[in-house]
Amino acid sequence: MGEKDKRTVDLGYAHLDGDRAERTGEPETIFCQGKTPAQVAEILSQLLAMHPNENIMGTRADQADFEAAKARVPETVYDEIARVLYVRRTDATDGRRIAVVSAGTADMPVAEEAALCASLLGHDVLRVYDVGVAGVHRLLEHEEAIRACDVVIVVAGMEGALASVVGGLVAAPVIAVPTSIGYGSSFEGLAALLAMLNSCANGVGVVNIDNGFGAACLADKILNTGRKERE
Amino acid sequence: MGEKDKRTVDLGYAHLDGDRAERTGEPETIFCQGKTPAQVAEILSQLLAMHPNENIMGTRADQADFEAAKARVPETVYDEIARVLYVRRTDATDGRRIAVVSAGTADMPVAEEAALCASLLGHDVLRVYDVGVAGVHRLLEHEEAIRACDVVIVVAGMEGALASVVGGLVAAPVIAVPTSIGYGSSFEGLAALLAMLNSCANGVGVVNIDNGFGAACLADKILNTGRKERE
Amino acid sequence: MGEKDKRTVDLGYAHLDGDRAERTGEPETIFCQGKTPAQVAEILSQLLAMHPNENIMGTRADQADFEAAKARVPETVYDEIARVLYVRRTDATDGRRIAVVSAGTADMPVAEEAALCASLLGHDVLRVYDVGVAGVHRLLEHEEAIRACDVVIVVAGMEGALASVVGGLVAAPVIAVPTSIGYGSSFEGLAALLAMLNSCANGVGVVNIDNGFGAACLADKILNTGRKERE
Amino acid sequence: MGEKDKRTVDLGYAHLDGDRAERTGEPETIFCQGKTPAQVAEILSQLLAMHPNENIMGTRADQADFEAAKARVPETVYDEIARVLYVRRTDATDGRRIAVVSAGTADMPVAEEAALCASLLGHDVLRVYDVGVAGVHRLLEHEEAIRACDVVIVVAGMEGALASVVGGLVAAPVIAVPTSIGYGSSFEGLAALLAMLNSCANGVGVVNIDNGFGAACLADKILNTGRKERE
Amino acid sequence: MGEKDKRTVDLGYAHLDGDRAERTGEPETIFCQGKTPAQVAEILSQLLAMHPNENIMGTRADQADFEAAKARVPETVYDEIARVLYVRRTDATDGRRIAVVSAGTADMPVAEEAALCASLLGHDVLRVYDVGVAGVHRLLEHEEAIRACDVVIVVAGMEGALASVVGGLVAAPVIAVPTSIGYGSSFEGLAALLAMLNSCANGVGVVNIDNGFGAACLADKILNTGRKERE
Amino acid sequence: MGEKDKRTVDLGYAHLDGDRAERTGEPETIFCQGKTPAQVAEILSQLLAMHPNENIMGTRADQADFEAAKARVPETVYDEIARVLYVRRTDATDGRRIAVVSAGTADMPVAEEAALCASLLGHDVLRVYDVGVAGVHRLLEHEEAIRACDVVIVVAGMEGALASVVGGLVAAPVIAVPTSIGYGSSFEGLAALLAMLNSCANGVGVVNIDNGFGAACLADKILNTGRKERE
Amino acid sequence: MGEKDKRTVDLGYAHLDGDRAERTGEPETIFCQGKTPAQVAEILSQLLAMHPNENIMGTRADQADFEAAKARVPETVYDEIARVLYVRRTDATDGRRIAVVSAGTADMPVAEEAALCASLLGHDVLRVYDVGVAGVHRLLEHEEAIRACDVVIVVAGMEGALASVVGGLVAAPVIAVPTSIGYGSSFEGLAALLAMLNSCANGVGVVNIDNGFGAACLADKILNTGRKERE
Amino acid sequence: MGEKDKRTVDLGYAHLDGDRAERTGEPETIFCQGKTPAQVAEILSQLLAMHPNENIMGTRADQADFEAAKARVPETVYDEIARVLYVRRTDATDGRRIAVVSAGTADMPVAEEAALCASLLGHDVLRVYDVGVAGVHRLLEHEEAIRACDVVIVVAGMEGALASVVGGLVAAPVIAVPTSIGYGSSFEGLAALLAMLNSCANGVGVVNIDNGFGAACLADKILNTGRKERE
Repeated sequence: MGEKDKRTVDLGYAHLDGDRAERTGEPETIFCQGKTPAQVAEILSQLLAMHPNENIMGTRADQADFEAAKARVPETVYDEIARVLYVRRTDATDGRRIAVVSAGTADMPVAEEAALCASLLGHDVLRVYDVGVAGVHRLLEHEEAIRACDVVIVVAGMEGALASVVGGLVAAPVIAVPTSIGYGSSFEGLAALLAMLNSCANGVGVVNIDNGFGAACLADKILNTGRKERE
Repeated sequence: MGEKDKRTVDLGYAHLDGDRAERTGEPETIFCQGKTPAQVAEILSQLLAMHPNENIMGTRADQADFEAAKARVPETVYDEIARVLYVRRTDATDGRRIAVVSAGTADMPVAEEAALCASLLGHDVLRVYDVGVAGVHRLLEHEEAIRACDVVIVVAGMEGALASVVGGLVAAPVIAVPTSIGYGSSFEGLAALLAMLNSCANGVGVVNIDNGFGAACLADKILNTGRKERE
Repeated sequence: MGEKDKRTVDLGYAHLDGDRAERTGEPETIFCQGKTPAQVAEILSQLLAMHPNENIMGTRADQADFEAAKARVPETVYDEIARVLYVRRTDATDGRRIAVVSAGTADMPVAEEAALCASLLGHDVLRVYDVGVAGVHRLLEHEEAIRACDVVIVVAGMEGALASVVGGLVAAPVIAVPTSIGYGSSFEGLAALLAMLNSCANGVGVVNIDNGFGAACLADKILNTGRKERE
Repeated sequence: MGEKDKRTVDLGYAHLDGDRAERTGEPETIFCQGKTPAQVAEILSQLLAMHPNENIMGTRADQADFEAAKARVPETVYDEIARVLYVRRTDATDGRRIAVVSAGTADMPVAEEAALCASLLGHDVLRVYDVGVAGVHRLLEHEEAIRACDVVIVVAGMEGALASVVGGLVAAPVIAVPTSIGYGSSFEGLAALLAMLNSCANGVGVVNIDNGFGAACLADKILNTGRKERE
Repeated sequence: MGEKDKRTVDLGYAHLDGDRAERTGEPETIFCQGKTPAQVAEILSQLLAMHPNENIMGTRADQADFEAAKARVPETVYDEIARVLYVRRTDATDGRRIAVVSAGTADMPVAEEAALCASLLGHDVLRVYDVGVAGVHRLLEHEEAIRACDVVIVVAGMEGALASVVGGLVAAPVIAVPTSIGYGSSFEGLAALLAMLNSCANGVGVVNIDNGFGAACLADKILNTGRKERE
Repeated sequence: MGEKDKRTVDLGYAHLDGDRAERTGEPETIFCQGKTPAQVAEILSQLLAMHPNENIMGTRADQADFEAAKARVPETVYDEIARVLYVRRTDATDGRRIAVVSAGTADMPVAEEAALCASLLGHDVLRVYDVGVAGVHRLLEHEEAIRACDVVIVVAGMEGALASVVGGLVAAPVIAVPTSIGYGSSFEGLAALLAMLNSCANGVGVVNIDNGFGAACLADKILNTGRKERE
Repeated sequence: MGEKDKRTVDLGYAHLDGDRAERTGEPETIFCQGKTPAQVAEILSQLLAMHPNENIMGTRADQADFEAAKARVPETVYDEIARVLYVRRTDATDGRRIAVVSAGTADMPVAEEAALCASLLGHDVLRVYDVGVAGVHRLLEHEEAIRACDVVIVVAGMEGALASVVGGLVAAPVIAVPTSIGYGSSFEGLAALLAMLNSCANGVGVVNIDNGFGAACLADKILNTGRKERE
Repeated sequence: MGEKDKRTVDLGYAHLDGDRAERTGEPETIFCQGKTPAQVAEILSQLLAMHPNENIMGTRADQADFEAAKARVPETVYDEIARVLYVRRTDATDGRRIAVVSAGTADMPVAEEAALCASLLGHDVLRVYDVGVAGVHRLLEHEEAIRACDVVIVVAGMEGALASVVGGLVAAPVIAVPTSIGYGSSFEGLAALLAMLNSCANGVGVVNIDNGFGAACLADKILNTGRKERE
């Protein structure tokens, strides 16, 4: 069996493309939403076989996905808040730190999706939650700790102002995640998205509304880039 | 000549409605945009006659408006940045303080419109400019001074985050003025407007994009309400 | 136990920040939406302990929130229309009056949220409901009563015209609350929001769609500003 | 030459379709914008020949259009405010009255386009200008006069509230014309358009932003419908 | 008991304003959506008492509303498609005809709301359904019948083109009702609404999305205007 | 010199990619907007050399582009209405017919861009202009001629209804081109775009606003597909 | 019974217009959404009688529609993924090939609607699924196979980029179908729709969001155009 | 003179905040748009004095800005395409490579702003221009070179698809810059912005429309993060 065969599995409803994962450095993960629990369990099982030493995760998973996965792969763990199911093979990290800073309690699911995925990707995570800009002093109490991190992920809904304030405090690259938290003229996250795109702080990259996993991926790529050369 | 006659003047192209000004406490002013310089000069002259002791102002005035006004009313003064022309009869203030806090240099025309109008309406004004949230420490240096004011007007374009940060610092009511400063996805002020409407700080009232005069009016009404009863 | 300890409680899922409440004058309240009934009950209990003499309220509460709260704090009361649960310790008011003027029957939940919160914050409230501008004579019958108030909160959906009409009648500051009442091209309150932001009456501050509580907060700040100096 | 030949003229750049004008009762007019002055003059000349007894008008005409038209047809008259050029052959009216009610001075070009076209179409016109809802008492002074009209055209920009207030005062059908007057979140007339579509007064029909001529046409159709049967 | 007392009833949750109905000629009706069945039944009962000879109707009524109404007022009838409940006292019409022309089967509820209400308001109704513009020959088969009507109501979702085609066929005023029928980029009726506002046929007045009742009201006002003078 | 060298030319500011033109069957053309006249002339010259027997065209060209092109390539011709410059080497067509049907006079530049490009691409073109749906009888006079064509391009602004009406008349594929003609709520072509996307006639493909050239390209591809196999 | 009678059936709730199907070449199909299962079954039965040799299909059908149809017409088949029910009388194809290329697994329902309908309309279909542009090498593996097709339908949600990439690879006409797959700022398919309309590849025609059937119809028209002449 | 004095200069119209530059690692630059040429020259001069060894740049500069700057600081250089003026003191780079990949010729100003600024910030830059996705083979020719870079900036207007394709090719973090290039439904860059936010490739961070400088800043932060620790 050739190298390629081992790396690519076609389940009919999904192509597991080990080559692309290799090429882009993106983790092979499962976007559970829109898949049946049986499909989630099957893909999880295949990914575990294809990547024998890596942590494997499924995002936007619900309880039924988890139960099907656990029946198939007993060591599966489920994080209800982050809606992530995963199998952790290693706690080893590269010692690089990602701060996940969020504005309000309601942003926690997105923040936890980012934080847990960042952790499973092998990085240390500092969580600084509920430090929305209406209480900027709360944020400033954490300034030094956040500044000590290598990448900062900012998660905020409503007016999304936290990205700008944090962007002005740190030298590290900032990844901004607007959330759909809010009502009325937040228009399902549009207000926060526009605010983050127009941040008066330079060096802020924005991902899609509620895309905590995408933020973790980008952070992972930032921390990995050029690593081989340096090593 | 009856009382009403003195208070209402019909110039054909404009009704000067002294009764309504009386009823609402709004100052009788000139919105110069869309009027000819000759009309501006004529209205100014009439308002000065109708209100012999009050400061009279015209907003969104250009150089031509000013020249026509000055030819008719020599004591007219023009503020180029605020684009306001005015005749000041009195420097007296009520001792109440309005802070005008702005995010960037480019917001200055709107901030100055608010500040100058607030001054002409008889209030003391504290200007705190160029304290955008990407440098929140600059803002915090002014925290005590701003907290000592009775009303705070926050002027910001781009992501409009300043309203939330200030709203979390002060006990006074905050009037938020989004500006059209920005480009791309600021969509001519929409990003800042939505951010301000979704402020995580409560007690923020928002006016239209670039409406510095409207903010000064609302501040004036806030400071005047219940005054008579208390006196 | 230090002063700060008494003022700040960290429940894990929520920070009760007595310091910020002190600084901004905003009441410490519970935004129940998105919290479990058990959390609502716990926070209510803590806030009652932290603020022994104040009225405490929770907005956007449903029946389950109320039942959990009542089980823990028997004196809890629930207002179904306003969707507010609260514990009232005092009926004392400062004698300042807030008019809450609404356009249609369907705007009543938002209007009542504003009115009840304003009352719990210690102000007298005048309710003038169902006086939409299509029947402007009905509104004018209440003109004198509204004009006698210190702040006016206008609540309207659909075309949101009521804010402009009221803004032209009174000298008091006007707080406009667009509601999501309407259908089709009301676009969930957008039509009313834009109308209020473009009011031809000056001195109107706008809050987010359906944000009755925010309007009450702003009214409260307006009535409190400068109070200490005057006393 | 057949009947059809007389009624249809093909100028290459425009089809003058007398048959359709006959069928729909719409006046044959010239939308000058986007046509050269020479074309405007030529079309005017042709329409005068085709309709020997009717008033002929061109909307959105500028000074150059007028001069070319006048050189060709000396009796052409130009109304600068309404931007309408026309040849009036008759002052006769049907005695039916159309009220044109406008909110502010800046709405006058659209209001005048409606009023002048309505007059040229053979109806009496009552102009009630500058009665925006922020001064509702000014409007009410004209209530009886407006109520005596057969159709009411309401012209307003900014928040567009006037349509609802007038709609609640009169029994006649109301035609609402939003204008692009305003700035910031008026979004070139969108705010007024949405307000008028969501009017809480029933019986309001809305036309496109700044479409004064369209309002006059609709009013004309309303007044003409069923006329023949009744006669 | 004075005249006014008889005409105005205050039920707490609704003001039945007989005076305004008188003034505007709008029928006193019930917008059932957002009211409880008990409230609907009560209001129906009151309106029947206030207007002893008129047809009374409630729009956006569901089965529960109907059952409550029927229990209280046995002669209540319910039209499931139009979602209208009503009590008909008279079949008399004024002999004026309203055509209701609709594009597709799915537009029928809105079309029937318009048609039934128009009938209850005392006009003859011609229904021409399922004649969307993709089969323009089907429409043209009805051209003469439609042209014989005094007012035409056009109901269409999707691209809303029917209003323009009909507007080019008839001399009568056209009332265009966009519907929310469609999917994807119809954006809940926005596509049809914009199309109708930009109709290349003049003399088209547009009402809100899905507002069949509003169209009937406007048609009624058009047919009634000037009636007294002529009689 | 190899085959590839002849097919690809790199001018620094533009890559002339003969390979891709070969692969996709798209004509190599010049989008003049945003290029200097000198660049247009140079590219034209190069394309003529690369494709010795083909017609070469430049779209969105202005007078200056034409003059520079003509100085370099004397046989260049310019069509002012279509804003297309071109060198025609052959009048030969494939005998397949493309109908270009447009709604109003103002749509002519876009319609002519489509028609001229289609002609230069080697197809016969039938122009049917100024047949907007408000005069559907004018369109029906051309029904047979349009039905005899192999592809139909429909060009319309304002409400864009023409695409649906034509789509219901013909068996050929319909390409719909919305134009930016209109004002107010046409929102620069958005109304027509949405209408065309929601056409109740199936088999309509839509291109970008004002993209006459793109429509001609799609028509060309439709007429060429499978040609080789059939030959 | 005349020819026309056989071709047109009026079921009250639907007109089966065999004449129009004849004229436009569009298949007579059932849009099941919004119809009752009984209506679907009845229409299916009628269409089978009217078109004795053709495949008949109903789109957007659910399980209940299918069961009702099967009870009436036992040979009815249901495709759950495509949500299409159909009766196939013939497998014969014209030998022309339509490629259906889709970006992700979640786009499969729309892709299958297009593919199955294309097949039932008598064409060969090549399915190339799950070849989104983030793995462009996967797509390129299929380049030759796709290039061998006569028409290409591209189905993609999220950023909709696949249409441009495919458009640059093939000479055949491309029909782009945006899907509503995505979240946050995909705004229910708007992002993909705009991307496809702005494709840098020419010769791309766009249909409504999720309109797989419409794409199949357009492909069918493209393949049929001029067929008779050629035969 | 203390350390702080040297680092902060207040010019009245601008605060040069050396402290914040230090804290965030963002370069102190001049956003020339909205400043007078004299102000640009003055700020440039001050920044050169404050930062004696660094490259200093001004973005969105026009010819007049450059001339004023050159008169004051003769070594100023101006890049017309990038609209950047700068004084380069050092060519030294850190050896890290940033690829700037752009879709079309018209995107070059934004791409060059990113590339030049990245170079001035001390990084090596690989320019890969005019490789839009409609010719994906052109892009693939550069795949290896791009994959050898540490960060990739993708600049694209119209449908913005390039970000997804590149994101699927490389392991490095991707910064996506939508541009306002396009017309019609590109809506000034909105189409590209939405496409990039919805990229099916993970690890893409988006900045504001046309913000080439912001992309260079983010790339700079990514390359600098953790550098000190590693050294």
